[in-house]
Amino acid sequence: MFRLPVRVYWEDTDAGGVVFYANYLRFFERARTEWLRSRGHLQERWRRESGIGFVVTDTSVRYRCPARLDDLLDVTVAVAHAGQASFSVAQQAWRSDASGHPQLLVEGTIRIGCVALGTFKPCRIPSAILDSIR
Amino acid sequence: MFRLPVRVYWEDTDAGGVVFYANYLRFFERARTEWLRSRGHLQERWRRESGIGFVVTDTSVRYRCPARLDDLLDVTVAVAHAGQASFSVAQQAWRSDASGHPQLLVEGTIRIGCVALGTFKPCRIPSAILDSIR
Amino acid sequence: MFRLPVRVYWEDTDAGGVVFYANYLRFFERARTEWLRSRGHLQERWRRESGIGFVVTDTSVRYRCPARLDDLLDVTVAVAHAGQASFSVAQQAWRSDASGHPQLLVEGTIRIGCVALGTFKPCRIPSAILDSIR
Amino acid sequence: MFRLPVRVYWEDTDAGGVVFYANYLRFFERARTEWLRSRGHLQERWRRESGIGFVVTDTSVRYRCPARLDDLLDVTVAVAHAGQASFSVAQQAWRSDASGHPQLLVEGTIRIGCVALGTFKPCRIPSAILDSIR
Repeated sequence: MFRLPVRVYWEDTDAGGVVFYANYLRFFERARTEWLRSRGHLQERWRRESGIGFVVTDTSVRYRCPARLDDLLDVTVAVAHAGQASFSVAQQAWRSDASGHPQLLVEGTIRIGCVALGTFKPCRIPSAILDSIR
Repeated sequence: MFRLPVRVYWEDTDAGGVVFYANYLRFFERARTEWLRSRGHLQERWRRESGIGFVVTDTSVRYRCPARLDDLLDVTVAVAHAGQASFSVAQQAWRSDASGHPQLLVEGTIRIGCVALGTFKPCRIPSAILDSIR
Repeated sequence: MFRLPVRVYWEDTDAGGVVFYANYLRFFERARTEWLRSRGHLQERWRRESGIGFVVTDTSVRYRCPARLDDLLDVTVAVAHAGQASFSVAQQAWRSDASGHPQLLVEGTIRIGCVALGTFKPCRIPSAILDSIR
Repeated sequence: MFRLPVRVYWEDTDAGGVVFYANYLRFFERARTEWLRSRGHLQERWRRESGIGFVVTDTSVRYRCPARLDDLLDVTVAVAHAGQASFSVAQQAWRSDASGHPQLLVEGTIRIGCVALGTFKPCRIPSAILDSIR
C-alpha cells in the first residue's frame, strides 16, 4: 500500500477549526499522483505525448473524525478495481493519536476514467500504466 | 427545489481546462448555505448562540460532464432524508447547452450531521431547523 | 466604480475563524471578471478566438480588518493605469458594520498583463478592450 | 535561508495550464510554517497556550514566470525585518530549468503581525519567537 505524509496548513482549515472536508479530495489526489510517480508515470508527460488524461468520475467519502492545523496525516492509496478504461482506488487519511496509535479520520473510494483530452471521451488505459497498477 | 446560480471563475478551474472536481463540493455547500438562509437559518448565528454546528459526514458525487470557465451553473438542493441528528440532501449542477436545454453535469448526495462545537459529538437538530427542512 | 457583492462561505474561512487572506485575491478576480463582462468582454471567448489572455503579474494587498463566515462583502474595481500591454486596477473589499457604515477591510492593486497563450509572451491589449477600460 | 520543496498538483493549476497565482501565497505560507517549525515554534500550540496568533497584514508579490503541473518548486524564506509586533519575510519560488539552472518564478514580501486571538488587536511578539527569527 502506498503512503504519503500530508501536513495540515492554514489553507486547509475552515472556521470550524478543522480541515475543510472538500480538501481531503486534494490530499487524496496528491497521494494518487505520488503513487503513479513512484511507478514511473508522470501525468503531465502523458498529456503532452499521448493526448490522454485521467479524470475523476466518482468520489465517495466518509468523514469520521476531524484533522486540525499542524496535524501530520498519512494518506494511503490501494487499487480496488482496474478495468479497461477506468480504475478505482480506496484511499484513507490516518493520524497518530497522543499515544501513537493510528486513527482513521477519512476514507473514500475514487473512480478514475481514462479520456481523450479535448473531447473527454473515454478511452483505453495504456497497457504500460494498467500493468503497473494492477 | 432550491436553486443557486454559480458562475465558474479562474479559481475553479484546473490545467485540464475544466472545473476541478473537488470544487463542486464548494458549489454544493454554497447552495446549501443559501437554501438554509432562505429558510431563515444563519449558520454563524447558531454557532455563536447555541454552540451547535453542522458538519459534512458523507459525500457521494458523480461527475458526468465537465464545466468550463465562464459557465453559469444552476446548483440545486433537495432534502433526501431528515433524521434526528443528521439529514441528507441530493444536489445537482446543471448548465444550459447551446440550444438552451439543461444538461446535468454533476450530481451527489451530501449527509450532514449536527454536532456540539468543540467536541464534535452528535446532537439533535434543533426542532426549528428540522421543521423547516422536512 | 464597479461593485460585486461577494458572500463569505465556509470554503473561504480558516481556523482563525476569519477569511483566509489569500482568498481575497479570488474575490478580487471574480470582481474583475464581472467588471469585464459588464463591458462585454468574455475572457474565455478571447482565449479561443484571438489566442491572447490576461495574466496577473503583480499583486499588492493590505489586510486591515478580517471578514467572517456569512459576511456580505462589497468588492470594487477601479482602473488605476492602462498601458499598451498591461493595466492596473485598484480593488477594495468593504463590509457594512452593525450601524450600516461601510468599513474598508482589504485593499490592493493588481497589475494584469496581456500575453500570447502558450508562450506567455507580452502582447498588445486589443484596442476594443483598451478603449472600454480606459 | 530556509527552503521548502513544493510539488505542483492539479489542485494548484488553472485553465491557463499554469499555477493559479493566488496559490503562491499558499506555497509561501507552507514554507513560513515549516521555517517556524524548524525553529521549534508550532502555531497551533501558541494559539492554545498563549492566546496569540500571527496574521498576514500585507502581501506584495511579483509573478515572473509560470509554474506547471508536476513542477517541483523550491520555496525560500528570509527575514527582511523584525519589529516588536510584526515582522516581514522575503520569499521566492524557484524551479530548475532543463539544464539544471535555477530560475526565479515568483517573489514577494509578506508582513505578519502578532495579534490577540478573538480581538485581532496587535500585541508584542513573544521574545522566544522574536529571538529565534532575528
